[in-house]
Amino acid sequence: MFHYQLEPRFSDTDALGHISNTALPVWFEEGRTPVFQIFHPSLDVKTWPLILARVEIDLMAQSYWDQTVEIRTGIGRIGNSSCRVIQQAFQGGQQIARGVAVLIHYDYSSQKSVPIPDEIRARLAEHSVDDA
Amino acid sequence: MFHYQLEPRFSDTDALGHISNTALPVWFEEGRTPVFQIFHPSLDVKTWPLILARVEIDLMAQSYWDQTVEIRTGIGRIGNSSCRVIQQAFQGGQQIARGVAVLIHYDYSSQKSVPIPDEIRARLAEHSVDDA
Amino acid sequence: MFHYQLEPRFSDTDALGHISNTALPVWFEEGRTPVFQIFHPSLDVKTWPLILARVEIDLMAQSYWDQTVEIRTGIGRIGNSSCRVIQQAFQGGQQIARGVAVLIHYDYSSQKSVPIPDEIRARLAEHSVDDA
Amino acid sequence: MFHYQLEPRFSDTDALGHISNTALPVWFEEGRTPVFQIFHPSLDVKTWPLILARVEIDLMAQSYWDQTVEIRTGIGRIGNSSCRVIQQAFQGGQQIARGVAVLIHYDYSSQKSVPIPDEIRARLAEHSVDDA
Repeated sequence: MFHYQLEPRFSDTDALGHISNTALPVWFEEGRTPVFQIFHPSLDVKTWPLILARVEIDLMAQSYWDQTVEIRTGIGRIGNSSCRVIQQAFQGGQQIARGVAVLIHYDYSSQKSVPIPDEIRARLAEHSVDDA
Repeated sequence: MFHYQLEPRFSDTDALGHISNTALPVWFEEGRTPVFQIFHPSLDVKTWPLILARVEIDLMAQSYWDQTVEIRTGIGRIGNSSCRVIQQAFQGGQQIARGVAVLIHYDYSSQKSVPIPDEIRARLAEHSVDDA
Repeated sequence: MFHYQLEPRFSDTDALGHISNTALPVWFEEGRTPVFQIFHPSLDVKTWPLILARVEIDLMAQSYWDQTVEIRTGIGRIGNSSCRVIQQAFQGGQQIARGVAVLIHYDYSSQKSVPIPDEIRARLAEHSVDDA
Repeated sequence: MFHYQLEPRFSDTDALGHISNTALPVWFEEGRTPVFQIFHPSLDVKTWPLILARVEIDLMAQSYWDQTVEIRTGIGRIGNSSCRVIQQAFQGGQQIARGVAVLIHYDYSSQKSVPIPDEIRARLAEHSVDDA
Protein backbone atom coordinates (compact mmCIF):
# COMPACT_ATOMS: atom_id res chain seq x y z
CA MET A 1 0.00 0.00 0.00
CA PHE A 2 1.25 3.46 -0.87
CA HIS A 3 0.82 6.35 1.56
CA TYR A 4 0.65 9.92 0.32
CA GLN A 5 0.25 12.99 2.51
CA LEU A 6 -1.53 15.90 0.93
CA GLU A 7 -2.35 19.41 2.00
CA PRO A 8 -5.87 20.46 0.97
CA ARG A 9 -5.99 23.84 -0.73
CA PHE A 10 -8.36 26.63 0.15
CA SER A 11 -9.63 26.43 -3.42
CA ASP A 12 -10.62 22.79 -2.77
CA THR A 13 -13.45 24.11 -0.62
CA ASP A 14 -16.83 25.25 -1.89
CA ALA A 15 -19.59 27.54 -0.70
CA LEU A 16 -21.05 24.82 1.51
CA GLY A 17 -18.07 25.52 3.79
CA HIS A 18 -16.16 22.25 3.44
CA ILE A 19 -14.09 20.40 0.87
CA SER A 20 -15.86 20.14 -2.48
CA ASN A 21 -16.68 16.64 -3.68
CA THR A 22 -14.79 17.60 -6.85
CA ALA A 23 -11.51 17.75 -4.90
CA LEU A 24 -11.55 14.03 -4.11
CA PRO A 25 -10.88 12.84 -7.69
CA VAL A 26 -7.96 15.28 -7.79
CA TRP A 27 -6.58 14.03 -4.47
CA PHE A 28 -6.95 10.38 -5.44
CA GLU A 29 -5.18 11.13 -8.74
CA GLU A 30 -2.22 12.46 -6.72
CA GLY A 31 -2.26 9.30 -4.64
CA ARG A 32 -1.90 7.21 -7.81
CA THR A 33 1.47 8.74 -8.74
CA PRO A 34 3.48 5.71 -7.47
CA VAL A 35 1.22 3.45 -9.55
CA PHE A 36 1.91 5.63 -12.59
CA GLN A 37 5.62 5.25 -11.83
CA ILE A 38 5.39 1.46 -11.88
CA PHE A 39 4.02 1.67 -15.42
CA HIS A 40 6.10 4.66 -16.49
CA PRO A 41 9.13 5.47 -14.33
CA SER A 42 9.99 8.71 -16.18
CA LEU A 43 6.47 10.16 -15.73
CA ASP A 44 7.07 11.86 -19.10
CA VAL A 45 3.67 12.98 -20.39
CA LYS A 46 4.73 12.65 -24.04
CA THR A 47 4.97 8.87 -23.71
CA TRP A 48 2.29 8.33 -21.08
CA PRO A 49 1.01 4.72 -21.27
CA LEU A 50 -2.22 4.83 -19.25
CA ILE A 51 -5.77 5.94 -19.65
CA LEU A 52 -8.38 6.20 -16.93
CA ALA A 53 -11.57 4.30 -17.73
CA ARG A 54 -13.62 4.69 -14.59
CA VAL A 55 -13.67 6.32 -11.18
CA GLU A 56 -15.94 5.59 -8.23
CA ILE A 57 -15.85 7.66 -5.07
CA ASP A 58 -17.80 7.21 -1.85
CA LEU A 59 -17.86 10.33 0.27
CA MET A 60 -18.02 9.16 3.87
CA ALA A 61 -17.47 12.24 6.03
CA GLN A 62 -16.96 15.96 5.66
CA SER A 63 -13.42 17.10 5.24
CA TYR A 64 -11.67 20.36 6.00
CA TRP A 65 -9.09 22.48 4.21
CA ASP A 66 -6.74 23.10 7.14
CA GLN A 67 -5.88 19.50 8.07
CA THR A 68 -3.52 17.14 6.28
CA VAL A 69 -5.10 14.31 4.30
CA GLU A 70 -3.58 10.87 3.92
CA ILE A 71 -4.31 8.90 0.77
CA ARG A 72 -3.74 5.13 0.95
CA THR A 73 -3.48 3.39 -2.40
CA GLY A 74 -3.36 -0.31 -3.23
CA ILE A 75 -3.87 -2.50 -6.26
CA GLY A 76 -7.04 -4.54 -6.70
CA ARG A 77 -7.84 -6.97 -9.48
CA ILE A 78 -5.40 -6.98 -12.38
CA GLY A 79 -6.83 -7.89 -15.78
CA ASN A 80 -5.15 -8.48 -19.11
CA SER A 81 -4.63 -4.79 -19.88
CA SER A 82 -6.28 -3.05 -16.93
CA CYS A 83 -5.98 -2.80 -13.19
CA ARG A 84 -8.15 -1.53 -10.41
CA VAL A 85 -6.65 0.96 -7.97
CA ILE A 86 -8.27 0.87 -4.53
CA GLN A 87 -7.92 4.03 -2.46
CA GLN A 88 -8.88 5.50 0.88
CA ALA A 89 -8.67 9.07 2.19
CA PHE A 90 -8.21 9.81 5.88
CA GLN A 91 -8.22 13.10 7.76
CA GLY A 92 -7.78 13.55 11.50
CA GLY A 93 -7.88 9.79 12.06
CA GLN A 94 -11.22 9.37 10.29
CA GLN A 95 -11.85 7.85 6.87
CA ILE A 96 -13.45 10.52 4.70
CA ALA A 97 -13.68 8.71 1.36
CA ARG A 98 -12.88 5.59 -0.57
CA GLY A 99 -12.26 5.36 -4.27
CA VAL A 100 -11.74 2.95 -7.13
CA ALA A 101 -9.98 3.90 -10.35
CA VAL A 102 -9.76 1.60 -13.36
CA LEU A 103 -6.54 2.20 -15.30
CA ILE A 104 -5.95 0.78 -18.76
CA HIS A 105 -2.48 0.18 -20.15
CA TYR A 106 -2.83 2.09 -23.38
CA ASP A 107 -0.97 3.03 -26.53
CA TYR A 108 -2.03 6.57 -27.45
CA SER A 109 -0.55 6.32 -30.98
CA SER A 110 -2.60 3.28 -32.00
CA GLN A 111 -5.39 4.23 -29.56
CA LYS A 112 -5.57 0.67 -28.29
CA SER A 113 -5.22 -1.04 -24.95
CA VAL A 114 -2.10 -3.17 -24.57
CA PRO A 115 -1.47 -6.15 -22.25
CA ILE A 116 0.28 -5.39 -18.96
CA PRO A 117 3.78 -6.92 -19.15
CA ASP A 118 4.62 -9.57 -16.56
CA GLU A 119 7.30 -7.43 -14.94
CA ILE A 120 4.84 -4.59 -14.29
CA ARG A 121 2.21 -7.08 -13.21
CA ALA A 122 4.59 -8.48 -10.61
CA ARG A 123 5.43 -5.03 -9.25
CA LEU A 124 1.74 -4.11 -9.06
CA ALA A 125 1.00 -7.36 -7.22
CA GLU A 126 3.41 -6.34 -4.45
CA HIS A 127 0.87 -3.67 -3.51
CA SER A 128 -2.28 -5.75 -3.79
CA VAL A 129 -5.15 -5.14 -1.39
CA ASP A 130 -8.64 -6.56 -0.96
CA ASP A 131 -10.94 -5.68 -3.87
CA ALA A 132 -14.39 -6.69 -2.73
CA MET B 1 -34.26 14.70 -18.82
CA PHE B 2 -32.42 17.97 -18.32
CA HIS B 3 -30.06 19.30 -20.99
CA TYR B 4 -27.19 21.59 -20.07
CA GLN B 5 -24.70 23.07 -22.52
CA LEU B 6 -21.28 23.75 -21.12
CA GLU B 7 -18.11 25.29 -22.50
CA PRO B 8 -14.99 23.40 -21.41
CA ARG B 9 -12.29 25.65 -20.03
CA PHE B 10 -8.66 25.59 -21.06
CA SER B 11 -7.84 24.81 -17.44
CA ASP B 12 -9.99 21.66 -17.71
CA THR B 13 -7.23 20.16 -19.86
CA ASP B 14 -4.11 18.46 -18.56
CA ALA B 15 -0.62 17.74 -19.83
CA LEU B 16 -1.82 14.66 -21.72
CA GLY B 17 -3.33 17.17 -24.18
CA HIS B 18 -7.03 16.52 -23.61
CA ILE B 19 -9.67 17.15 -20.97
CA SER B 20 -8.58 15.95 -17.52
CA ASN B 21 -10.63 13.17 -15.97
CA THR B 22 -11.02 15.51 -12.99
CA ALA B 23 -13.13 17.91 -15.08
CA LEU B 24 -15.95 15.42 -15.53
CA PRO B 25 -17.11 15.47 -11.88
CA VAL B 26 -17.18 19.29 -12.14
CA TRP B 27 -19.17 19.21 -15.38
CA PHE B 28 -21.66 16.65 -14.06
CA GLU B 29 -22.10 18.78 -10.93
CA GLU B 30 -23.11 21.70 -13.18
CA GLY B 31 -25.57 19.43 -14.96
CA ARG B 32 -27.24 18.64 -11.64
CA THR B 33 -28.24 22.28 -10.99
CA PRO B 34 -31.89 21.72 -12.06
CA VAL B 35 -32.04 18.74 -9.68
CA PHE B 36 -30.72 20.95 -6.89
CA GLN B 37 -33.46 23.45 -7.78
CA ILE B 38 -36.18 20.82 -7.36
CA PHE B 39 -34.95 20.24 -3.80
CA HIS B 40 -34.01 23.85 -3.10
CA PRO B 41 -35.48 26.48 -5.45
CA SER B 42 -33.49 29.39 -3.95
CA LEU B 43 -30.12 27.61 -4.37
CA ASP B 44 -29.09 29.48 -1.20
CA VAL B 45 -25.97 27.75 0.12
CA LYS B 46 -26.75 28.68 3.73
CA THR B 47 -29.78 26.38 3.74
CA TRP B 48 -28.57 23.74 1.28
CA PRO B 49 -30.46 20.48 1.87
CA LEU B 50 -28.37 17.92 -0.01
CA ILE B 51 -25.19 15.97 0.43
CA LEU B 52 -23.40 13.92 -2.19
CA ALA B 53 -22.72 10.35 -1.06
CA ARG B 54 -21.21 8.76 -4.16
CA VAL B 55 -20.10 9.47 -7.71
CA GLU B 56 -19.31 7.01 -10.49
CA ILE B 57 -17.93 8.12 -13.81
CA ASP B 58 -17.13 6.05 -16.89
CA LEU B 59 -14.81 7.84 -19.28
CA MET B 60 -15.76 6.62 -22.75
CA ALA B 61 -13.88 8.83 -25.22
CA GLN B 62 -11.36 11.65 -25.19
CA SER B 63 -12.80 15.13 -25.05
CA TYR B 64 -11.50 18.49 -26.17
CA TRP B 65 -11.49 21.96 -24.69
CA ASP B 66 -12.69 23.88 -27.77
CA GLN B 67 -16.01 22.13 -28.38
CA THR B 68 -19.27 22.54 -26.48
CA VAL B 69 -20.30 19.69 -24.20
CA GLU B 70 -23.88 18.67 -23.57
CA ILE B 71 -24.76 17.14 -20.22
CA ARG B 72 -27.98 15.11 -20.06
CA THR B 73 -29.33 14.50 -16.59
CA GLY B 74 -32.16 12.26 -15.45
CA ILE B 75 -33.36 10.74 -12.20
CA GLY B 76 -32.83 7.05 -11.45
CA ARG B 77 -34.04 5.13 -8.43
CA ILE B 78 -35.51 7.23 -5.64
CA GLY B 79 -35.12 5.87 -2.11
CA ASN B 80 -36.53 7.07 1.18
CA SER B 81 -34.05 9.93 1.59
CA SER B 82 -31.77 9.52 -1.44
CA CYS B 83 -31.96 9.57 -5.19
CA ARG B 84 -29.66 8.50 -7.99
CA VAL B 85 -28.87 11.04 -10.71
CA ILE B 86 -28.04 9.42 -14.05
CA GLN B 87 -25.95 11.54 -16.42
CA GLN B 88 -24.35 11.47 -19.83
CA ALA B 89 -21.86 13.82 -21.47
CA PHE B 90 -21.75 14.30 -25.23
CA GLN B 91 -19.32 16.23 -27.40
CA GLY B 92 -19.44 16.52 -31.18
CA GLY B 93 -22.24 13.97 -31.38
CA GLN B 94 -20.29 11.34 -29.43
CA GLN B 95 -20.88 10.19 -25.88
CA ILE B 96 -17.73 10.90 -23.90
CA ALA B 97 -18.82 9.86 -20.40
CA ARG B 98 -21.61 8.62 -18.22
CA GLY B 99 -22.04 9.28 -14.54
CA VAL B 100 -24.08 8.38 -11.52
CA ALA B 101 -24.39 10.63 -8.46
CA VAL B 102 -26.13 9.58 -5.26
CA LEU B 103 -27.70 12.58 -3.53
CA ILE B 104 -29.00 12.44 0.02
CA HIS B 105 -31.68 14.79 1.32
CA TYR B 106 -29.86 16.06 4.37
CA ASP B 107 -30.23 18.35 7.34
CA TYR B 108 -26.82 19.92 7.99
CA SER B 109 -27.81 21.21 11.45
CA SER B 110 -28.73 17.77 12.82
CA GLN B 111 -26.30 16.04 10.43
CA LYS B 112 -28.95 13.50 9.50
CA SER B 113 -30.60 12.36 6.32
CA VAL B 114 -34.27 13.31 6.00
CA PRO B 115 -37.03 11.65 3.92
CA ILE B 116 -37.73 13.17 0.53
CA PRO B 117 -41.17 14.85 0.71
CA ASP B 118 -43.85 13.54 -1.67
CA GLU B 119 -44.03 16.80 -3.61
CA ILE B 120 -40.30 16.72 -4.39
CA ARG B 121 -40.52 13.00 -5.13
CA ALA B 122 -43.24 13.66 -7.68
CA ARG B 123 -41.24 16.41 -9.38
CA LEU B 124 -38.14 14.19 -9.51
CA ALA B 125 -40.20 11.36 -11.02
CA GLU B 126 -41.11 13.60 -13.96
CA HIS B 127 -37.47 13.31 -15.03
CA SER B 128 -36.97 9.61 -14.44
CA VAL B 129 -34.74 7.61 -16.75
CA ASP B 130 -33.56 4.01 -16.89
CA ASP B 131 -31.28 3.10 -13.98
CA ALA B 132 -29.84 -0.28 -14.91
CA MET C 1 -14.12 44.41 -27.77
CA PHE C 2 -15.00 40.75 -27.39
CA HIS C 3 -17.92 39.66 -25.23
CA TYR C 4 -18.00 36.23 -23.65
CA GLN C 5 -20.79 34.88 -21.48
CA LEU C 6 -19.76 32.38 -18.88
CA GLU C 7 -21.58 30.27 -16.31
CA PRO C 8 -19.75 30.13 -12.98
CA ARG C 9 -19.39 26.63 -11.62
CA PHE C 10 -20.24 25.55 -8.11
CA SER C 11 -16.60 24.49 -7.76
CA ASP C 12 -15.58 28.11 -8.48
CA THR C 13 -16.84 28.99 -5.01
CA ASP C 14 -14.88 28.62 -1.80
CA ALA C 15 -15.67 28.22 1.88
CA LEU C 16 -16.14 31.98 2.30
CA GLY C 17 -19.45 31.47 0.47
CA HIS C 18 -18.72 33.32 -2.77
CA ILE C 19 -16.64 32.93 -5.90
CA SER C 20 -12.99 32.18 -5.11
CA ASN C 21 -10.45 34.76 -6.25
CA THR C 22 -8.72 31.89 -8.03
CA ALA C 23 -11.67 31.54 -10.44
CA LEU C 24 -11.08 34.96 -11.99
CA PRO C 25 -7.83 34.04 -13.78
CA VAL C 26 -9.65 31.01 -15.20
CA TRP C 27 -12.60 33.10 -16.36
CA PHE C 28 -10.38 35.76 -17.92
CA GLU C 29 -8.44 33.03 -19.71
CA GLU C 30 -11.71 31.86 -21.29
CA GLY C 31 -12.43 35.44 -22.35
CA ARG C 32 -9.10 35.53 -24.21
CA THR C 33 -10.06 32.70 -26.58
CA PRO C 34 -10.86 35.08 -29.48
CA VAL C 35 -7.46 36.73 -28.97
CA PHE C 36 -5.82 33.30 -29.11
CA GLN C 37 -7.73 32.69 -32.36
CA ILE C 38 -6.30 35.85 -33.94
CA PHE C 39 -2.80 34.48 -33.29
CA HIS C 40 -3.66 30.85 -33.90
CA PRO C 41 -6.92 30.16 -35.77
CA SER C 42 -6.74 26.36 -35.34
CA LEU C 43 -6.32 26.60 -31.55
CA ASP C 44 -4.21 23.42 -31.89
CA VAL C 45 -2.23 23.07 -28.66
CA LYS C 46 0.64 21.28 -30.40
CA THR C 47 1.57 24.43 -32.32
CA TRP C 48 0.45 27.02 -29.75
CA PRO C 49 2.32 30.31 -30.36
CA LEU C 50 1.72 32.25 -27.15
CA ILE C 51 2.98 32.38 -23.62
CA LEU C 52 1.51 34.32 -20.74
CA ALA C 53 4.02 36.59 -19.02
CA ARG C 54 1.90 38.42 -16.47
CA VAL C 55 -1.58 38.71 -15.04
CA GLU C 56 -3.05 41.44 -12.87
CA ILE C 57 -6.52 41.19 -11.39
CA ASP C 58 -8.44 43.72 -9.32
CA LEU C 59 -11.31 42.17 -7.42
CA MET C 60 -13.97 44.85 -7.17
CA ALA C 61 -17.11 43.16 -5.82
CA GLN C 62 -18.22 39.75 -4.61
CA SER C 63 -19.57 37.43 -7.24
CA TYR C 64 -21.95 34.52 -7.09
CA TRP C 65 -22.07 31.08 -8.66
CA ASP C 66 -25.68 31.13 -9.88
CA GLN C 67 -25.56 34.21 -12.11
CA THR C 68 -24.09 34.51 -15.60
CA VAL C 69 -20.84 36.46 -15.90
CA GLU C 70 -19.90 38.57 -18.88
CA ILE C 71 -16.24 38.96 -19.76
CA ARG C 72 -15.30 41.92 -21.96
CA THR C 73 -11.92 41.70 -23.61
CA GLY C 74 -9.99 44.30 -25.58
CA ILE C 75 -6.43 44.86 -26.73
CA GLY C 76 -4.17 47.40 -25.00
CA ARG C 77 -0.66 48.36 -25.97
CA ILE C 78 0.97 46.20 -28.63
CA GLY C 79 4.74 45.84 -28.44
CA ASN C 80 7.20 44.19 -30.78
CA SER C 81 6.43 40.65 -29.65
CA SER C 82 3.89 41.16 -26.86
CA CYS C 83 0.44 42.61 -26.33
CA ARG C 84 -1.60 43.59 -23.33
CA VAL C 85 -5.11 42.19 -23.02
CA ILE C 86 -7.46 44.40 -21.03
CA GLN C 87 -10.46 42.67 -19.48
CA GLN C 88 -13.50 43.33 -17.35
CA ALA C 89 -15.92 40.96 -15.64
CA PHE C 90 -19.55 41.91 -15.00
CA GLN C 91 -22.27 40.11 -13.11
CA GLY C 92 -25.83 41.33 -12.61
CA GLY C 93 -24.99 44.69 -14.17
CA GLN C 94 -22.09 45.33 -11.79
CA GLN C 95 -18.39 45.21 -12.58
CA ILE C 96 -16.83 42.56 -10.34
CA ALA C 97 -13.24 42.59 -11.61
CA ARG C 98 -10.79 43.96 -14.11
CA GLY C 99 -7.74 42.23 -15.44
CA VAL C 100 -4.64 42.68 -17.53
CA ALA C 101 -2.83 39.81 -19.22
CA VAL C 102 0.48 40.22 -21.04
CA LEU C 103 0.77 37.73 -23.90
CA ILE C 104 4.03 37.06 -25.71
CA HIS C 105 4.17 35.74 -29.26
CA TYR C 106 6.45 32.79 -28.66
CA ASP C 107 8.19 29.93 -30.40
CA TYR C 108 8.17 26.96 -28.01
CA SER C 109 10.76 25.02 -30.06
CA SER C 110 13.42 27.74 -29.89
CA GLN C 111 12.01 29.03 -26.55
CA LYS C 112 12.20 32.60 -27.85
CA SER C 113 9.76 35.42 -28.33
CA VAL C 114 9.00 36.30 -31.95
CA PRO C 115 7.76 39.60 -33.46
CA ILE C 116 4.04 39.90 -34.00
CA PRO C 117 3.43 39.87 -37.80
CA ASP C 118 1.76 42.95 -39.29
CA GLU C 119 -1.35 41.05 -40.30
CA ILE C 120 -1.97 39.85 -36.73
CA ARG C 121 -1.08 43.31 -35.41
CA ALA C 122 -3.74 44.85 -37.64
CA ARG C 123 -6.39 42.37 -36.52
CA LEU C 124 -5.52 42.97 -32.86
CA ALA C 125 -5.74 46.73 -33.38
CA GLU C 126 -9.37 46.37 -34.48
CA HIS C 127 -10.15 45.49 -30.87
CA SER C 128 -8.06 48.12 -29.16
CA VAL C 129 -9.27 49.72 -25.95
CA ASP C 130 -7.86 52.26 -23.50
CA ASP C 131 -4.81 50.98 -21.65
CA ALA C 132 -4.19 53.49 -18.90
CA MET D 1 9.74 35.30 5.28
CA PHE D 2 7.53 32.23 5.29
CA HIS D 3 8.53 29.11 3.36
CA TYR D 4 5.91 26.69 2.12
CA GLN D 5 6.61 23.49 0.20
CA LEU D 6 3.93 22.41 -2.19
CA GLU D 7 3.42 19.43 -4.46
CA PRO D 8 1.98 20.43 -7.84
CA ARG D 9 -0.99 18.31 -8.88
CA PHE D 10 -1.39 16.65 -12.24
CA SER D 11 -4.57 18.68 -12.65
CA ASP D 12 -2.48 21.86 -12.30
CA THR D 13 -1.13 21.16 -15.79
CA ASP D 14 -2.82 22.10 -19.02
CA ALA D 15 -2.77 20.90 -22.63
CA LEU D 16 0.36 22.94 -23.37
CA GLY D 17 2.19 20.27 -21.35
CA HIS D 18 3.29 22.31 -18.34
CA ILE D 19 1.76 23.93 -15.28
CA SER D 20 -1.21 26.14 -16.14
CA ASN D 21 -0.85 29.83 -15.36
CA THR D 22 -4.10 29.45 -13.39
CA ALA D 23 -2.33 27.22 -10.84
CA LEU D 24 -0.06 30.01 -9.64
CA PRO D 25 -2.80 32.05 -7.92
CA VAL D 26 -3.85 28.85 -6.15
CA TRP D 27 -0.30 28.07 -5.06
CA PHE D 28 0.34 31.61 -3.85
CA GLU D 29 -2.92 31.49 -1.90
CA GLU D 30 -1.61 28.40 -0.09
CA GLY D 31 1.61 30.26 0.66
CA ARG D 32 -0.39 33.03 2.36
CA THR D 33 -1.82 30.69 5.03
CA PRO D 34 0.64 31.90 7.74
CA VAL D 35 -0.36 35.49 6.92
CA PHE D 36 -4.02 34.53 7.31
CA GLN D 37 -3.09 33.00 10.69
CA ILE D 38 -1.56 36.26 11.90
CA PHE D 39 -4.89 37.98 11.24
CA HIS D 40 -7.05 35.03 12.22
CA PRO D 41 -5.38 32.28 14.27
CA SER D 42 -8.40 29.93 14.19
CA LEU D 43 -8.67 30.05 10.37
CA ASP D 44 -12.42 29.62 10.92
CA VAL D 45 -14.13 30.61 7.66
CA LYS D 46 -17.29 31.79 9.44
CA THR D 47 -15.41 34.70 11.01
CA TRP D 48 -12.82 35.30 8.27
CA PRO D 49 -11.52 38.88 8.50
CA LEU D 50 -9.79 39.39 5.14
CA ILE D 51 -10.68 40.11 1.57
CA LEU D 52 -8.37 39.97 -1.42
CA ALA D 53 -8.37 43.18 -3.45
CA ARG D 54 -5.71 42.53 -6.07
CA VAL D 55 -3.29 39.93 -7.36
CA GLU D 56 -0.34 40.38 -9.71
CA ILE D 57 1.66 37.45 -11.00
CA ASP D 58 4.74 37.43 -13.22
CA LEU D 59 5.36 34.07 -14.84
CA MET D 60 9.11 33.78 -15.23
CA ALA D 61 9.80 30.18 -16.29
CA GLN D 62 7.90 27.03 -17.14
CA SER D 63 7.11 24.75 -14.25
CA TYR D 64 6.48 21.04 -14.02
CA TRP D 65 4.02 18.88 -12.14
CA ASP D 66 6.46 16.30 -10.78
CA GLN D 67 8.82 18.57 -8.83
CA THR D 68 8.23 20.21 -5.48
CA VAL D 69 7.60 23.97 -5.48
CA GLU D 70 8.70 26.30 -2.75
CA ILE D 71 6.65 29.42 -2.08
CA ARG D 72 8.39 32.25 -0.19
CA THR D 73 6.10 34.82 1.33
CA GLY D 74 6.89 38.15 2.94
CA ILE D 75 5.05 41.31 3.89
CA GLY D 76 5.43 44.49 1.84
CA ARG D 77 3.92 47.87 2.56
CA ILE D 78 1.33 47.94 5.32
CA GLY D 79 -1.41 50.56 5.02
CA ASN D 80 -4.16 51.58 7.38
CA SER D 81 -6.38 48.59 6.63
CA SER D 82 -4.47 46.76 3.93
CA CYS D 83 -1.17 45.04 3.41
CA ARG D 84 0.79 43.84 0.43
CA VAL D 85 1.99 40.24 0.41
CA ILE D 86 5.13 39.71 -1.69
CA GLN D 87 5.68 36.17 -2.95
CA GLN D 88 8.08 34.11 -5.00
CA ALA D 89 7.79 30.56 -6.37
CA PHE D 90 10.85 28.38 -6.94
CA GLN D 91 11.18 24.96 -8.53
CA GLY D 92 14.39 23.02 -8.99
CA GLY D 93 16.47 25.96 -7.80
CA GLN D 94 14.97 28.35 -10.34
CA GLN D 95 12.49 31.16 -9.70
CA ILE D 96 9.36 30.42 -11.74
CA ALA D 97 7.09 33.27 -10.64
CA ARG D 98 6.66 36.24 -8.38
CA GLY D 99 3.41 37.57 -7.03
CA VAL D 100 1.83 40.41 -5.12
CA ALA D 101 -1.45 40.09 -3.25
CA VAL D 102 -3.23 43.02 -1.63
CA LEU D 103 -5.17 41.91 1.44
CA ILE D 104 -7.72 44.12 3.15
CA HIS D 105 -8.65 43.69 6.79
CA TYR D 106 -12.41 43.45 6.38
CA ASP D 107 -15.63 43.09 8.32
CA TYR D 108 -17.98 40.93 6.22
CA SER D 109 -21.03 41.84 8.32
CA SER D 110 -20.73 45.59 7.77
CA GLN D 111 -18.97 45.04 4.42
CA LYS D 112 -16.33 47.61 5.36
CA SER D 113 -12.58 47.62 5.66
CA VAL D 114 -11.27 47.95 9.22
CA PRO D 115 -7.91 49.28 10.46
CA ILE D 116 -5.21 46.71 11.15
CA PRO D 117 -4.69 46.59 14.95
CA ASP D 118 -1.20 47.45 16.20
CA GLU D 119 -0.57 43.97 17.52
CA ILE D 120 -1.23 42.39 14.12
CA ARG D 121 0.75 45.16 12.45
CA ALA D 122 3.75 44.35 14.63
CA ARG D 123 3.53 40.65 13.86
CA LEU D 124 3.28 41.35 10.12
CA ALA D 125 6.30 43.67 10.31
CA GLU D 126 8.43 40.78 11.60
CA HIS D 127 8.11 39.28 8.12
CA SER D 128 8.68 42.42 6.08
CA VAL D 129 10.54 42.23 2.79
CA ASP D 130 11.45 44.69 0.05
CA ASP D 131 8.42 46.02 -1.81
CA ALA D 132 9.78 47.86 -4.80
